[in-house]
Amino acid sequence: MSFNTFGHLFRFTTFGESHGPAIGCVVDGCPPRIPLSVEDIQHHLDRRRPGQSRFTTQRQEPDAVKIMSGVFRDEASGTDVTTGAPIMLLIENVDQRSKDYSEIKDKYRPGHAGYTYDVKYGLHDYRGGGRASARETAARVAAGAIARKIVPGMTVRGALVQMGPHKIDRAKWDWSEVDKNPFFCPDAKMAKFFEEYLDGVRKSGSSIGAVIEVVAEGVPAGLGAPIYAKLDGDLAGALMGINAVKGVEIGDGFATATMSGEDNADEMRKPDRTLGNDGKPVFLSNHAGGILGGISTGQAIVARFAVKPTSSILNTRKTVDRYGNDADVMTKGRHDPCVGIRAVPIGEAMMACVLADHFLRHRGQVGEATAWPFEKK
Amino acid sequence: MSFNTFGHLFRFTTFGESHGPAIGCVVDGCPPRIPLSVEDIQHHLDRRRPGQSRFTTQRQEPDAVKIMSGVFRDEASGTDVTTGAPIMLLIENVDQRSKDYSEIKDKYRPGHAGYTYDVKYGLHDYRGGGRASARETAARVAAGAIARKIVPGMTVRGALVQMGPHKIDRAKWDWSEVDKNPFFCPDAKMAKFFEEYLDGVRKSGSSIGAVIEVVAEGVPAGLGAPIYAKLDGDLAGALMGINAVKGVEIGDGFATATMSGEDNADEMRKPDRTLGNDGKPVFLSNHAGGILGGISTGQAIVARFAVKPTSSILNTRKTVDRYGNDADVMTKGRHDPCVGIRAVPIGEAMMACVLADHFLRHRGQVGEATAWPFEKK
Amino acid sequence: MSFNTFGHLFRFTTFGESHGPAIGCVVDGCPPRIPLSVEDIQHHLDRRRPGQSRFTTQRQEPDAVKIMSGVFRDEASGTDVTTGAPIMLLIENVDQRSKDYSEIKDKYRPGHAGYTYDVKYGLHDYRGGGRASARETAARVAAGAIARKIVPGMTVRGALVQMGPHKIDRAKWDWSEVDKNPFFCPDAKMAKFFEEYLDGVRKSGSSIGAVIEVVAEGVPAGLGAPIYAKLDGDLAGALMGINAVKGVEIGDGFATATMSGEDNADEMRKPDRTLGNDGKPVFLSNHAGGILGGISTGQAIVARFAVKPTSSILNTRKTVDRYGNDADVMTKGRHDPCVGIRAVPIGEAMMACVLADHFLRHRGQVGEATAWPFEKK
Amino acid sequence: MSFNTFGHLFRFTTFGESHGPAIGCVVDGCPPRIPLSVEDIQHHLDRRRPGQSRFTTQRQEPDAVKIMSGVFRDEASGTDVTTGAPIMLLIENVDQRSKDYSEIKDKYRPGHAGYTYDVKYGLHDYRGGGRASARETAARVAAGAIARKIVPGMTVRGALVQMGPHKIDRAKWDWSEVDKNPFFCPDAKMAKFFEEYLDGVRKSGSSIGAVIEVVAEGVPAGLGAPIYAKLDGDLAGALMGINAVKGVEIGDGFATATMSGEDNADEMRKPDRTLGNDGKPVFLSNHAGGILGGISTGQAIVARFAVKPTSSILNTRKTVDRYGNDADVMTKGRHDPCVGIRAVPIGEAMMACVLADHFLRHRGQVGEATAWPFEKK
Repeated sequence: MSFNTFGHLFRFTTFGESHGPAIGCVVDGCPPRIPLSVEDIQHHLDRRRPGQSRFTTQRQEPDAVKIMSGVFRDEASGTDVTTGAPIMLLIENVDQRSKDYSEIKDKYRPGHAGYTYDVKYGLHDYRGGGRASARETAARVAAGAIARKIVPGMTVRGALVQMGPHKIDRAKWDWSEVDKNPFFCPDAKMAKFFEEYLDGVRKSGSSIGAVIEVVAEGVPAGLGAPIYAKLDGDLAGALMGINAVKGVEIGDGFATATMSGEDNADEMRKPDRTLGNDGKPVFLSNHAGGILGGISTGQAIVARFAVKPTSSILNTRKTVDRYGNDADVMTKGRHDPCVGIRAVPIGEAMMACVLADHFLRHRGQVGEATAWPFEKK
Repeated sequence: MSFNTFGHLFRFTTFGESHGPAIGCVVDGCPPRIPLSVEDIQHHLDRRRPGQSRFTTQRQEPDAVKIMSGVFRDEASGTDVTTGAPIMLLIENVDQRSKDYSEIKDKYRPGHAGYTYDVKYGLHDYRGGGRASARETAARVAAGAIARKIVPGMTVRGALVQMGPHKIDRAKWDWSEVDKNPFFCPDAKMAKFFEEYLDGVRKSGSSIGAVIEVVAEGVPAGLGAPIYAKLDGDLAGALMGINAVKGVEIGDGFATATMSGEDNADEMRKPDRTLGNDGKPVFLSNHAGGILGGISTGQAIVARFAVKPTSSILNTRKTVDRYGNDADVMTKGRHDPCVGIRAVPIGEAMMACVLADHFLRHRGQVGEATAWPFEKK
Repeated sequence: MSFNTFGHLFRFTTFGESHGPAIGCVVDGCPPRIPLSVEDIQHHLDRRRPGQSRFTTQRQEPDAVKIMSGVFRDEASGTDVTTGAPIMLLIENVDQRSKDYSEIKDKYRPGHAGYTYDVKYGLHDYRGGGRASARETAARVAAGAIARKIVPGMTVRGALVQMGPHKIDRAKWDWSEVDKNPFFCPDAKMAKFFEEYLDGVRKSGSSIGAVIEVVAEGVPAGLGAPIYAKLDGDLAGALMGINAVKGVEIGDGFATATMSGEDNADEMRKPDRTLGNDGKPVFLSNHAGGILGGISTGQAIVARFAVKPTSSILNTRKTVDRYGNDADVMTKGRHDPCVGIRAVPIGEAMMACVLADHFLRHRGQVGEATAWPFEKK
Repeated sequence: MSFNTFGHLFRFTTFGESHGPAIGCVVDGCPPRIPLSVEDIQHHLDRRRPGQSRFTTQRQEPDAVKIMSGVFRDEASGTDVTTGAPIMLLIENVDQRSKDYSEIKDKYRPGHAGYTYDVKYGLHDYRGGGRASARETAARVAAGAIARKIVPGMTVRGALVQMGPHKIDRAKWDWSEVDKNPFFCPDAKMAKFFEEYLDGVRKSGSSIGAVIEVVAEGVPAGLGAPIYAKLDGDLAGALMGINAVKGVEIGDGFATATMSGEDNADEMRKPDRTLGNDGKPVFLSNHAGGILGGISTGQAIVARFAVKPTSSILNTRKTVDRYGNDADVMTKGRHDPCVGIRAVPIGEAMMACVLADHFLRHRGQVGEATAWPFEKK
């Protein structure tokens, strides 16, 4: 994995700055003959797109994606399909509001990457966050839309499960609620509460953190690999690599520190086709989050990640400028009071990309699926 | 990163099974002319070595490392130094207790990787956990001992901060205590408590989880890279990739979900040489854990990870065998009641390897350090 | 190195098809603060551009490059410089002549990749060669223009040294002639001859092969690495990977098979500053082409590669169609009678990219240059 | 590909110096359930082993390989098979003749890598060539023995086709002769001639170059990939990376520079099962060496490479020492008068590794083979 490339066999390379002419990505290693239309990708970009409620930045970006390469009309089916060549996806920036940057271009905003970019590279594009802007994540969502089509039968969904100290009631989890509120919240009652709560945060010029959960269902057993290509290791790297993420858990996560071996063990029962599990063993629980020894068990893959509050707040903070002087700084302009919200489709995309990559890597090394259970000789 | 290789410029590849003739690793990309002796490596292996207290597995392995290549006598200094060639480190297995495997070779132990290895590869070496055994982590510790010598001035230390529901008192943190108790616990009083607590767990044939914290000091600002080579992303992948780890946090981690932007911001003040910070800005807090935008700030890098309880317990659990039949299983034999303990030197090693790799990658792309603060033109 | 990515620390990923909307590349790992303008890149693209003489395809493509990201105004110098972020270079296709593809879309042209793409992927974009078109090499030349700026003091130049059976007279080699004739030929007299010779080939509807030599001067000693990152191995891979190349040599190449050890040895003399070699030893010959043990010696790096004749010819050949039937095929339309000509700037670009990558990799692993000669203790 | 690692999905990492305790490799990414015994590997090591005739170095190394990991007894078949885990192969050095190195340790031998290692790393292990010794190639041959078992039905064979200016008569090519003479020469008459010829070279204390040809048969169409993972590009990199190789050709190689498009085109005819080509088209020639557009055509893959004469000769050459003084040097001791001979099994091994890697990469990206010819809709 290089600086701006994610993945191994299925991989994508992103480019672009917040206020440059465009952002986008090149997806490489995609299998051929997968039907792919602009709509397949646009659907997921629209879920991430800012400016759709008062709870996200008011920057207006249509995030209209163009497929620039790698797709061709398949004569047999009459539809556009991937060809195995790299797929370049281009998203033009249209709302790079021209403004006076003199206030922020020399002063570091605490919690932003301005200082670290400067100390590493000697300069940085400060306009709208430049390369560090969350706009880069649109390219991830676009790549993820392709990844979702690679593992047959796989579904990846995400939801916001905590905002500030307020957790949802997991007993009330309803996936169909997620797209009905501006928070991707699966608990309708809590979504109502978040509306009021976040309005308060927003109006005070402050911001708040959140926890997101992403779940992949229909993932075949056997994906991942022991040691340094563990599915959980790669997921953790992918999710921690999303802007503003500070923690990642798989399955029961940090709670396992408090558990006994008995409580944590996911017991197994023999395959039971009436449970629709297709010849595979039945697990009586999923504390492991669908991964054992770095390899998928066939259960749902479950991960959570914590998103810190935006550092862009209206209150003045102490800082320094790039010339080494003390200063005060206050971030004006458009921002998200809870960046965790829009992290939901991004988390889904990263999980889909990790799983697509491992699906291809597994097929490469091992080929056809093993015929479990084995026959006794 | 391939299946059994970790890292990019500084990288190591491990090999070996728990009950094979040996385990070890090949370290590649190490800079030349770094003094390196067996003792440098053995010191850290001895910290991880089992059988040193009643709280770890009673398997007796001296874990004596041999340097098989990549080191040569430097005439100028008269000491053995790295040559830039690959360094092969070999650790022979000596206590592969021969025993009857008929009980476990066909039955999966809940929480172990036996089922996922079988369903992926069609077979697995079940003796002592085979490739999935924690013995593989000795090779990581050995590689980490070399990594520690690469970043000038860097120190990486770790400690156990929670066992079961019991957290240490951070106000009592004393690094000098860590090597004085069998738990790597920095709080002397809590170490006493853990002794009794873990004896109870052990005698009941059960096991318990833990939380480990690793801290790197003396890390220069500017290591890491935005987007897909983020320092926090790579650390999360590395730590989650340790056996039995289920959660990773950087800095304030999951607690940031509950914080406001004001509370989470690490304010900055101008360089103050009386504080010994060498021309770099002073941060008034370190909620970020030393990383902003994926790049080190120059503060201490702080990460925590949760280790689940061992699945090897004396109590019977429901399972299936590899032929698809229901079964009961109980793990006899040597095991760790709290595998989290020995994860301390392993976590240190993985953090050291990530930082050494990023130190070299940064030097490759950027070269000499930037002269911050900049001069105003 | 993945399917469409070249390089390790300095790397680029290309995309686009001959008759799609655009081609281009994303350059990643470029050091920051390197001055970079459109003109720096356009200059080299113009040398490769088709339609400039009657000896190359008449397709009219301005090959106008746009820098879409990764460059920002440096306040200190007032010029545009790289930022360390990925640099996306976009070249729009403007002369995708619409035509009737019914003749070739189902029939394979011998020597073209149509059959192998089809048998691998199940379909291919047949318009103008699709992804297999030489248009993709424009993206390489663009990336190479950036690579040239990375190794201080390095110059990479190329020349055509053979067309068909006709070799240039190496005693008449004059670099200043190379850009004065349409063949990049360093021997003015031979260039005159080639004009007539290639006109004959062109008019007969045939094509002819060529040999290209590329030379890098000013390359510091010590770049490359033993074993699997050898400079010569990487150069061979890079040059053989150019469309239509069938052979690669370093230094004396295949001629060394006929040489004795005495003749092949490049003898050395002590540093002689009057020869301007800056404290490094003087080599009395350069049979090795500037590389020993995979590492640069400080002499000129010299490589040659053979380019096969275009398979696109006006004479009918026997073939099959994609449905498994016998057929005859003839390629109408625009083509190059000697594709080797335009391979000159492409070969230069690939050599520059290999050297830039190794420059950064060397700096990463080893850091500062070694102070050779050593002091005797 | 890193410094000491070769390949992508199927990959191996080598270690060890000529006069250290051992050399060897770690093979990673090998598919599981492939039968593998020591004999499978030893057979090929024995072909490369020195000291078997007066035409190779008299160093006596049994090159006895041990499989240290990655293989386990398969209960179903009762044979040892790969498990998917890394396979470490260890070859101990036994004939590191202790001798006085004072003559060569400070003086560079022209044509050797001593100077470039020194200028790069600041020191090198001069004993027997250290890491630059041809002993490292034993590890390649061992890895290649595993690679040969990965592509079903594939055979890789090599032969010496030229020594000094003397080429074999290709009309007399008989594969069964190759293992009957000490030169791997497929032309029995020429093998006789080489015996006398090389004796003359050897007795004069000189050395001579050679050309080797390697051929892979039974390679399915569709392996390789366009652009930067071309099969020919990867083969060229792999073969040029063998010690002392200075040129590589695929198919007709440099001769294509002199050919017309008509002569170079490999015409095709429809599948003809009487020719045993299994539903695939019949090619009427193989100028391309089995590769078009970087992808295998299903024909034999043919490559040749030139090996320079050993620089270790008994005649005195001018050189410098590591302290920058002029000196004379003469190489005493054991050496090969024609290192090209032993390059035959090494070339085979590298070709097998490239093909095994591409076989897995293709299976990863594309999955099942395409059903060519297509059905017309």
